[in-house]
Amino acid sequence: MTSQFDVLSIGNAIVDILARSDDDFLVQEGLAKGSMNLIDAERAETLYSAMGPAIEASGGSAGNTAAGIASLGGRSAYAGKIADDALGTVYRHDMTAQGVHFRTAPLLDGAPTARSMILITPDGERTMNTYLGACVELGPEDIDDDVAASSAVIYFEGYLWDPPRAKNALRKAADIAHANGRRMAITLSDSFCVDRWRSEFLDLIRSGTVDIVFANEHEVRALYQTADFDTAITALRADAALGIVTMSEHGSMVVEGETTSTVGARPVEQIADLTGAGDLFAAGFLYGLTHDLPHAVSQDLGALAAARSIEQIGPRPQVNLADDARQAGIAI
Amino acid sequence: MTSQFDVLSIGNAIVDILARSDDDFLVQEGLAKGSMNLIDAERAETLYSAMGPAIEASGGSAGNTAAGIASLGGRSAYAGKIADDALGTVYRHDMTAQGVHFRTAPLLDGAPTARSMILITPDGERTMNTYLGACVELGPEDIDDDVAASSAVIYFEGYLWDPPRAKNALRKAADIAHANGRRMAITLSDSFCVDRWRSEFLDLIRSGTVDIVFANEHEVRALYQTADFDTAITALRADAALGIVTMSEHGSMVVEGETTSTVGARPVEQIADLTGAGDLFAAGFLYGLTHDLPHAVSQDLGALAAARSIEQIGPRPQVNLADDARQAGIAI
Repeated sequence: MTSQFDVLSIGNAIVDILARSDDDFLVQEGLAKGSMNLIDAERAETLYSAMGPAIEASGGSAGNTAAGIASLGGRSAYAGKIADDALGTVYRHDMTAQGVHFRTAPLLDGAPTARSMILITPDGERTMNTYLGACVELGPEDIDDDVAASSAVIYFEGYLWDPPRAKNALRKAADIAHANGRRMAITLSDSFCVDRWRSEFLDLIRSGTVDIVFANEHEVRALYQTADFDTAITALRADAALGIVTMSEHGSMVVEGETTSTVGARPVEQIADLTGAGDLFAAGFLYGLTHDLPHAVSQDLGALAAARSIEQIGPRPQVNLADDARQAGIAI
Repeated sequence: MTSQFDVLSIGNAIVDILARSDDDFLVQEGLAKGSMNLIDAERAETLYSAMGPAIEASGGSAGNTAAGIASLGGRSAYAGKIADDALGTVYRHDMTAQGVHFRTAPLLDGAPTARSMILITPDGERTMNTYLGACVELGPEDIDDDVAASSAVIYFEGYLWDPPRAKNALRKAADIAHANGRRMAITLSDSFCVDRWRSEFLDLIRSGTVDIVFANEHEVRALYQTADFDTAITALRADAALGIVTMSEHGSMVVEGETTSTVGARPVEQIADLTGAGDLFAAGFLYGLTHDLPHAVSQDLGALAAARSIEQIGPRPQVNLADDARQAGIAI
């Protein structure tokens, strides 16, 4: 069956508030570098008062992936919950202006649009502090049956297990996807998220609710509670139909049954900000996957999109990734 | 008399909405590249719908200068009108978090915080489309007598002649400044602004209401309605106690009585976005001026701050300019 969309991405719709920070500030605020911390409205206000001057950019892990797929020329749809407020208007604009189909109804008279205060240390690492706001109301009613049925892959972020109702939305999406011969993909989001939801994530993968698993080294090790990467990869190979593991500057590894594809990272001119790098890798890989490219090419496309993301402040493509890929000699 | 602040900057308090654009889009929207266009709320909505995905950053010409002075370690104050809304909260945070004294009361129950949709073409040039919103209500009541009296220089943008009441605020500020032995500085803002307000600007300068004039080549030629740069400089030298003219990649020229100081530009690694370059030059020069540095050093400091601004997207320092200056061998 032909599809209307290459990928439907589902996630927490979040506006990023990005500021430079030194390591001392993280220590002072009790923040583990590289982590995503869930915070309430009060803590959001306190932290905002304490942090430096910032810029704002639409973000959210799956949202960044959706934008990346569109920038590569893919047919991209997104579902996520914004509020009917100024940041929500910005979020919808940025998605739509990038060519992403985004029609999720905004939350009325509820919490405001989610925001994440992202502290970027001199090494480019980002530490996130997320107030989920309107995201907690994402539910099954926000999954459009037609869009879900006509997307080749439905991709969602593990972070969706944090708000209370989103997992029901995901189960609905999975039912529709599989009834229509589509595939479900998850990204494990971060190792703390894996710690919070390990058994549920494993159940999703082992039950076949999810076909494709994206993770980085830390997350796959956290999933299988092992310090040994090879042990984790062996377990992932057994559990998931298709596993994609990113390894920072060492590139990425794809495991599918007995086969393994390892591809190096693309060079980065100067590390500015790691925010969105993993999301953009997923965008490149998913574009390739849904265009029947060999995994190695999809991995290279992911590496390129990630590299471009790392060289800039902000999580989404500020260049046309399709042009960039062609200039880099990747045939898409 | 000792001063509490080095510079009080006064301007339109504007949040920038920055998006990449191609030249065709400017043509299609009837926009002159490099210009600042005043637009109403309706046009703002239409243009926002048509433009690409964006990032948001606090801006405003004099606001950028105030932030730059603070980043250099100067004692910086700002006056500008925001609304009591989400963008206003962002604007105040960014100013305060940068260490700028900013206490102007927000506008209640009126127009929203001003925003400028800035289209960045591949050459790095920016074309601005500004909805003034709450800025139109800046008036004499927003000038704090004590802050004005205790600032070594009061610096304001020519753009303030566009909203109806701001010129009264400026005249009040000038009276306070001169009664306390301080100096008034204007930036001519842009050549279209000069065309709109030429006779009033000339009157401000010739009457001694303004002591210091910042301009770029286009603006100084527009002020004196001549295509010849030397003619314009001769006229500026006669009219202004101190004139500072930026010449893009050719550096800057300072004229003061019979003396002239010409200093080259600092190298730019890669042009990303010209937004804020002139404002940051002014920040560097004003820091030097208020710290009794020789004009040539102040010009070099301005050139450095401008270069850093050009290498990034967004109008304000994303690095600590004081550290940057010391690393570049400028003793501040």
